[in-house]
Amino acid sequence: MEMYSGPINKLIEELSTLPGIGEKSAGRLAFHLINMPRAKVERLATTIMEAKDKVTYCSECYTLTDASVCPVCSNAKRDHSVIMVVENSRDLAAYEKTGKYEGVYHVLHGAISPMLGIGPGDIKLKELISRLQDDVVKEVIIATNSSLEGETTAMYISKLIKPTGVKVTRIASGVPVGGDLECIDEVTLLRALEGRVEI
Amino acid sequence: MEMYSGPINKLIEELSTLPGIGEKSAGRLAFHLINMPRAKVERLATTIMEAKDKVTYCSECYTLTDASVCPVCSNAKRDHSVIMVVENSRDLAAYEKTGKYEGVYHVLHGAISPMLGIGPGDIKLKELISRLQDDVVKEVIIATNSSLEGETTAMYISKLIKPTGVKVTRIASGVPVGGDLECIDEVTLLRALEGRVEI
Repeated sequence: MEMYSGPINKLIEELSTLPGIGEKSAGRLAFHLINMPRAKVERLATTIMEAKDKVTYCSECYTLTDASVCPVCSNAKRDHSVIMVVENSRDLAAYEKTGKYEGVYHVLHGAISPMLGIGPGDIKLKELISRLQDDVVKEVIIATNSSLEGETTAMYISKLIKPTGVKVTRIASGVPVGGDLECIDEVTLLRALEGRVEI
Repeated sequence: MEMYSGPINKLIEELSTLPGIGEKSAGRLAFHLINMPRAKVERLATTIMEAKDKVTYCSECYTLTDASVCPVCSNAKRDHSVIMVVENSRDLAAYEKTGKYEGVYHVLHGAISPMLGIGPGDIKLKELISRLQDDVVKEVIIATNSSLEGETTAMYISKLIKPTGVKVTRIASGVPVGGDLECIDEVTLLRALEGRVEI
């Protein structure tokens, strides 16, 4: 039998299609929403639609933004000769949170994955290459994830850019700060060993 | 600095006020919503508002429903002489999922909690008492949670109803089926011992 009435079931069903929300959390969320004051629920629904409608790609770095050029790209104080390539806008935000990176970004919106059928044409790669035409860019830092897809993408971009003479670097891979060696997988440990630096 | 553009930040902020959604999940959800097809986002927003607007209390058991009387209360095959008292509609659904309970319910929408300042007048308690007036009800099964608040509420209801002559019972407390003894807290173990039955 149907556990709840139609509109509740429909809401639970919709919510459980979202990432990280299972059937149980969807139920808890649904009842929370129903018990919230109407004005707050309406504000949430409006905010969702507004974010969907107002947010587009930055015309330079392709991050998600509501301006035609994002705050980072339109900031003249940033070093426009260094481009950090990331997989998505959340990775960009992670580096922005450090407050130390002064260059600009390029958001690929994905990574090359033969398994999932995502090729170089499916991510913002030719947009990256066209940014290198005007001789302003001196270095491309590849900060794709340290996953199979991220590494594949990094290798691909590196091979593509190197002939143009632009310096290509890759963020370091190793033991996270504060990480306990015994909790870290062997691949990372070996990577940290290979990447050792003199102190 | 602001990590994301205004509409994204606003959406993340709104989402992170929901239960079980921290800042990180809110960020993941927000970008998922922005990348979803517009029609799907609109359907979600509409479903939220519809659930909020259409759902009210059942006039008999006070569960959340879109009908004036919920499917359980309006089902003549259910045993209307037995009322199971639960804290909320999700607890009702949990018992409905067992498919074995044939009585009806009463949803309190909370539990007595002196700590949170929730008194007997703040939950649907007088509504329960008024349901006992017509001599149809023979038994009230108290199925509030096995928490301090749930137990307090159970004791309070029991004392309130007993003088009317209606039988009052409490669902059993003990080791969950399939539960590993060594993983279970001492209070539960003692409760299971006290509640032992002859086999």
